[in-house]
Amino acid sequence: MTAKFIGAGVGPGDPELITLKACRYIQNADVISYISNEQGVSQAKSIAQDVLKNARSNLQEIPLLMPMQENRTEANRVYDEASTAIQQAIANGLQVVFLCEGDPLFFGSFGYLLERLQGHIPCEVVPGISSIHAAASALQHPLTVLTESFSVVSGRHSQEKIESALRNNETVVIMKAGRSRQRILQALRNTQRANDAQYLEYIGRDKEKIYHNVLDLDGEAGPYFSLFVVTSRARCSR
Amino acid sequence: MTAKFIGAGVGPGDPELITLKACRYIQNADVISYISNEQGVSQAKSIAQDVLKNARSNLQEIPLLMPMQENRTEANRVYDEASTAIQQAIANGLQVVFLCEGDPLFFGSFGYLLERLQGHIPCEVVPGISSIHAAASALQHPLTVLTESFSVVSGRHSQEKIESALRNNETVVIMKAGRSRQRILQALRNTQRANDAQYLEYIGRDKEKIYHNVLDLDGEAGPYFSLFVVTSRARCSR
Repeated sequence: MTAKFIGAGVGPGDPELITLKACRYIQNADVISYISNEQGVSQAKSIAQDVLKNARSNLQEIPLLMPMQENRTEANRVYDEASTAIQQAIANGLQVVFLCEGDPLFFGSFGYLLERLQGHIPCEVVPGISSIHAAASALQHPLTVLTESFSVVSGRHSQEKIESALRNNETVVIMKAGRSRQRILQALRNTQRANDAQYLEYIGRDKEKIYHNVLDLDGEAGPYFSLFVVTSRARCSR
Repeated sequence: MTAKFIGAGVGPGDPELITLKACRYIQNADVISYISNEQGVSQAKSIAQDVLKNARSNLQEIPLLMPMQENRTEANRVYDEASTAIQQAIANGLQVVFLCEGDPLFFGSFGYLLERLQGHIPCEVVPGISSIHAAASALQHPLTVLTESFSVVSGRHSQEKIESALRNNETVVIMKAGRSRQRILQALRNTQRANDAQYLEYIGRDKEKIYHNVLDLDGEAGPYFSLFVVTSRARCSR
């Protein structure tokens, strides 16, 4: 088997929401790689911990210790060094699997490694369950039916961009809602969409919280892993 | 264990893109249910066929034979009858798993059953890999980075809606692109996004086709399972 660099989605948090393919690749990996914080904690690795119980006994690791502050220069240095280490491992014939929370190519960090390695070494991507689909399942509510349109924005977008998405689409998911909670609640009120909105944090984990009425939320900042799902509640699908 | 009605995503086509949780539920099911065409062919069931090899020996089935033409009255009759049969099975203490292509709550039919059964019997939804994430993985190209905005429309939308999405979002996925191919190509040209577009059909199946240059596509209709992924090719993520 040719040595490959594989980005594998491990899903949104529930350890059973990993695909058979991601499991197989993780358990056959010679090297796993993942983002961790400065304390060595990796969300992606902890989601995969049950799967990793059946990993190779001589499994090697390439952790990417990511600084918390948004310092692109420092982050780029971490990606550069990891890319070099991964290329070296592939050159030695080792299979390298990078563990990604959710889906590898949806608002994740895997793209930064992929752009450095694509064209230089064989790459493959295994999709994962993203938080938008996990949210719809937790709410037991269709994201879209028939000809509704659907848009994803993030709390990092401008107020204008968020309000425009809310005005122009029946369904809107607002990702990375933590620090922008106050601004998002204001956008929902400004566009008369507060009654269409539901809020979730830590989906599928022990500390999962769901608010079906977002006006019950206070204005304090929420965690990074939080999102708003806005759907047309008046929808009639028949 | 309480009998439950479970909608389980089986992913976009590759039989390994099923989650561990969907596998477990399918293999413990007393009854499986699924949409099939008038010839008895079910895409969702065929994707799950390897998993079904380990299903219970006395597994029962509730197929929904869906007429091809877009006749809502007839479709509603099929959903009504299936809902009654599913409720009966649950009342008999049987675990019922409805197999859904892709994700159950993203442009699927599962919502039509769920709205009939929700509140009457215990329901659960297991998310699946949707075609948007499968497409990004097949293209090895991030759907979104940093503060890009992302929108999903379908070939069933008006020309105006599709062009507006293409003008207002860096990333646009156009689903159900088969019969609307000609109109979509025109919208891509009108908005100067043809160079940003890639086209995929039957992702992860034997007959998968990918066009990195959509101007190589002719104007004929494509299959139902086809989509366009439009991303900012000039994107710089560093």
